[in-house]
Amino acid sequence: MPHSYETDGAAIYRASFATIRAEADLARFTPEEEVVAVRMIHASGMVDLAPQIAFAPGFALAARAALEAGAPILCDARMVSEGITRARLPVGNAVICTLPDPQVPALAAAMGNTRSAAAVELWRPHLQGAVVAIGNAPTALFHLLNRLQDPDFPRPAAIIGCPVGFIGAAESKAALMGDNPVPWCVVRGRLGGSAITVAAVNALASRRE
Amino acid sequence: MPHSYETDGAAIYRASFATIRAEADLARFTPEEEVVAVRMIHASGMVDLAPQIAFAPGFALAARAALEAGAPILCDARMVSEGITRARLPVGNAVICTLPDPQVPALAAAMGNTRSAAAVELWRPHLQGAVVAIGNAPTALFHLLNRLQDPDFPRPAAIIGCPVGFIGAAESKAALMGDNPVPWCVVRGRLGGSAITVAAVNALASRRE
Repeated sequence: MPHSYETDGAAIYRASFATIRAEADLARFTPEEEVVAVRMIHASGMVDLAPQIAFAPGFALAARAALEAGAPILCDARMVSEGITRARLPVGNAVICTLPDPQVPALAAAMGNTRSAAAVELWRPHLQGAVVAIGNAPTALFHLLNRLQDPDFPRPAAIIGCPVGFIGAAESKAALMGDNPVPWCVVRGRLGGSAITVAAVNALASRRE
Repeated sequence: MPHSYETDGAAIYRASFATIRAEADLARFTPEEEVVAVRMIHASGMVDLAPQIAFAPGFALAARAALEAGAPILCDARMVSEGITRARLPVGNAVICTLPDPQVPALAAAMGNTRSAAAVELWRPHLQGAVVAIGNAPTALFHLLNRLQDPDFPRPAAIIGCPVGFIGAAESKAALMGDNPVPWCVVRGRLGGSAITVAAVNALASRRE
């Protein structure tokens, strides 16, 4: 007997979002934040993600406005840049991941830092007013925060800071919340990752669920 | 003051894996399974993933042998295919994602199924002996399982079945375990996703941690 299952992609999305809204505690989010949180939970498969999601005041509106004005999206990893749904971008925004740039390995060696941190250096010409999406590397977020301590360094419009893992992830997100250089969104602690980060971008890019 | 953090990528990996081995209960895994489970936990940021990870007997050895013999890796999503570390592949294995193929939308409409399920149809010339890596779409896994009920359909060497989410994910993985068409690895329930799936492939591709 063949397995029977829902084969309508739109119906799967609707039922998924309805399940999340029935099970997760989303009451503390503004309406603009709630649609972002729902997609982040959707990507993780965990309604227990909700209490770990945090937004700076005004983040969702700032990030959405930047995207609608044509801001590029700067991503720390190819899994992030490849996951963003191009059809949802409001004005064909550029999606940029500098990690595969051939300059990166030598730059990392010269900096004494990871390739992910070195790739952030190559964001500089695109960074002013951009939306930053970090879903993998704590070192990319730490390096960006250190650079943003210079008031003359170009400033993104918003930072999605969701690096994942056991070494530096929680600390880098705490540093983002503490420094508060621009409006941010994080998943606190060890959780995060490229899928959750992509989900936040996809939610901010279009008002269509 | 600039933030101080670990900037040596190899040291970050070592410390991450050591933290996972200190905190997660991995005792029920064979040595071949343990290295796969550790990387899956690493990608998720959750030691609580361990009890949800399940392997069919012989899966890790079968998947590793297939990769070492040159098997292609068939991925349901671009986030999976883009995440696999090419430098870890033993013999430059092909990494294939048919989802962006221009035939897929019309095929999906004709099948009355999702694009992810339609993309599985295009795996057929590559499927015999391949390693399948499904990290997103329950419909891709369900469709593959229904096809494999035909004994003449080409058979992969192993299936990593880790679709994520609220509608069909848990059910599709239960169906894989129940049908048991070839050796498999799953994350039970709603959890899963492209990063966890990529981590399993990367662990199987090379014995180097």
